[in-house]
Amino acid sequence: MSATTPTQQTEQPGRIMSGELAEQPAVLRRILEVGAPKIREVAEQIAAKRPRFVLLTARGTSDNAALYAKYLLEVRLGLPCGLTSMSTTTAYGAKPDLTDVLVITVSQSGGSPDLVASTKAAREAGAITLSVTNNPDSPLAAVSEYHIDILAGPEKALPATKTYTASLLALYLFVEGMAGNDGSAAKALPELAEQLLARQPEIKTLAGRYRFAERMVITSRGYGYPTAKEAALKLMETSYIPALSYSGADLLHGPLAMIDAISPVIAIVTDGKGGQALQPVLERLRGRGADLVVIGSQAEVDKASAGFALPTEGVAEEVQPILEILPLQMLAYEVTIARGQDPDAPRALAKVTETH
Amino acid sequence: MSATTPTQQTEQPGRIMSGELAEQPAVLRRILEVGAPKIREVAEQIAAKRPRFVLLTARGTSDNAALYAKYLLEVRLGLPCGLTSMSTTTAYGAKPDLTDVLVITVSQSGGSPDLVASTKAAREAGAITLSVTNNPDSPLAAVSEYHIDILAGPEKALPATKTYTASLLALYLFVEGMAGNDGSAAKALPELAEQLLARQPEIKTLAGRYRFAERMVITSRGYGYPTAKEAALKLMETSYIPALSYSGADLLHGPLAMIDAISPVIAIVTDGKGGQALQPVLERLRGRGADLVVIGSQAEVDKASAGFALPTEGVAEEVQPILEILPLQMLAYEVTIARGQDPDAPRALAKVTETH
Repeated sequence: MSATTPTQQTEQPGRIMSGELAEQPAVLRRILEVGAPKIREVAEQIAAKRPRFVLLTARGTSDNAALYAKYLLEVRLGLPCGLTSMSTTTAYGAKPDLTDVLVITVSQSGGSPDLVASTKAAREAGAITLSVTNNPDSPLAAVSEYHIDILAGPEKALPATKTYTASLLALYLFVEGMAGNDGSAAKALPELAEQLLARQPEIKTLAGRYRFAERMVITSRGYGYPTAKEAALKLMETSYIPALSYSGADLLHGPLAMIDAISPVIAIVTDGKGGQALQPVLERLRGRGADLVVIGSQAEVDKASAGFALPTEGVAEEVQPILEILPLQMLAYEVTIARGQDPDAPRALAKVTETH
Repeated sequence: MSATTPTQQTEQPGRIMSGELAEQPAVLRRILEVGAPKIREVAEQIAAKRPRFVLLTARGTSDNAALYAKYLLEVRLGLPCGLTSMSTTTAYGAKPDLTDVLVITVSQSGGSPDLVASTKAAREAGAITLSVTNNPDSPLAAVSEYHIDILAGPEKALPATKTYTASLLALYLFVEGMAGNDGSAAKALPELAEQLLARQPEIKTLAGRYRFAERMVITSRGYGYPTAKEAALKLMETSYIPALSYSGADLLHGPLAMIDAISPVIAIVTDGKGGQALQPVLERLRGRGADLVVIGSQAEVDKASAGFALPTEGVAEEVQPILEILPLQMLAYEVTIARGQDPDAPRALAKVTETH
């Protein structure tokens, strides 16, 4: 682990982010081997309370992990879910009745005061509270009835990478645990993640494409949509390229007008129902002559301007987001290096964001 | 009403959008005078069923109206809310138990097949279903148990303007009706809207600022956040400027890195708790030397690089979004005209979007 703090100048730009990116297979393995039994236990205890509705609370990268959990909870458990607008409690003092409601708060640091305040308020309002953090000693873990530790180890680069995939896997195991499943679809992930990370030279080539990009649009549908949002956030906070993410369906309701031959589009085509639902959007984009880069199966990559092929054989759709984001994290890193900036030290950012 | 369809060439670019924009005071008046009693009746019938959760479903401009309703429902009624990820039912076939759940679907046309399908599925799953549309004869109205007509008259320009403010007002009256209130805070809106629309020359001057902008960031917090999202959508679909919208709190979690002296920021500073919660964000933006244009009170405008002052005296915070969007609709129009494009005919868009 590097002793350099993110605010210090690093000798080699992006060294911290690149190191944490590379740790991901080990972190995923740790969660499966060490974390899983505890996650299963928490899941069973919460399932026994039979929540009827789930509210997810998070910000930034963790918000994208929460969105992934929302898809899982709705599709796998049939639980209606909402992402909270935190200001309704923190600024407006709304006092909802949260009986039968499971409130899940996702936060890498577990330190943001607004998340702690809203979780505390939710518990007082009768909610079952669960926090998912990278710090079991955090204030957020302390105020929550249940806690899941994502076991990612200290994260020092400002752009979150390993805590994102760790949150996804922990949330996947939690939802499967609530359904009484063992989450065996996740078993192959550490090995597959290793293979993907070894393909950095391919990403370096792809990054050249965006060296002078002034904007980007990233789209997906279903399970891949959180990946699109997280990829956009990662690209923006490292390379400062304005990257707009849309669910494919929303893209057709307005933002499509913005796309022309010089607006690059990245589509995350999850292999399964999400990717199928995205097909009409891909056709429209090809029809408009968009520069379309696909992250998905080899067959989908072959139909695009360029892409990065993901393994699909035997990888369940609902765990694909844990792999899909890896080439996009590497892309954010490589584009930023290519533009002569330092991915470890985005201007203006602090690791624990003190929103109130 | 013009007989020209949006796909035909108009003699004067933007004539249709500009005409519909100008109709807004009359539409608001019609809702207050003609629509309100029926809305009140629907609200009372639904309140009597005591829903415990609300799920809101919409796309594009209507999604921003739904987000406004989410704030109202949470703050004014203390009802936990979620915005649905439609693909979980339409692509993945999720079958949630929706007993005690109110499902509100907002759609100008009431014609999108995915909205009709998801509302039908929600009703079969036990939900109380309400649709809010501009067409009482639409398929969506037909499949919903309850319907509210926003009475905006036919909308022919592709960028929605009057149906947005009409949806906001109808949803406001609905939520107030559920609380047993008469919505009297909305009484002054038609008059105030007229006064704002008369200030088009101010907006024309402001538009010059964005003649060559390559990106924009739009931010707000609380009730103003839906305005930020709708303004970004409007600017993108008319002028094609990539406009990124963030809640102020999210902006601090990453995208702030993207903002420098050449990245214009528009902040919607709602007069009240939302605007107060935005203050630390405004300070950070001023500290970074951002070009900050404020839509808000005269006092807030005076602290910014430029702005457009809104009336605040006697205007309750929760109805301010119905006024806030007007200068931003005009701005989208004027920027697009200044760039030599036609706001009536954004490339690639169709009025009823056939997502499935």
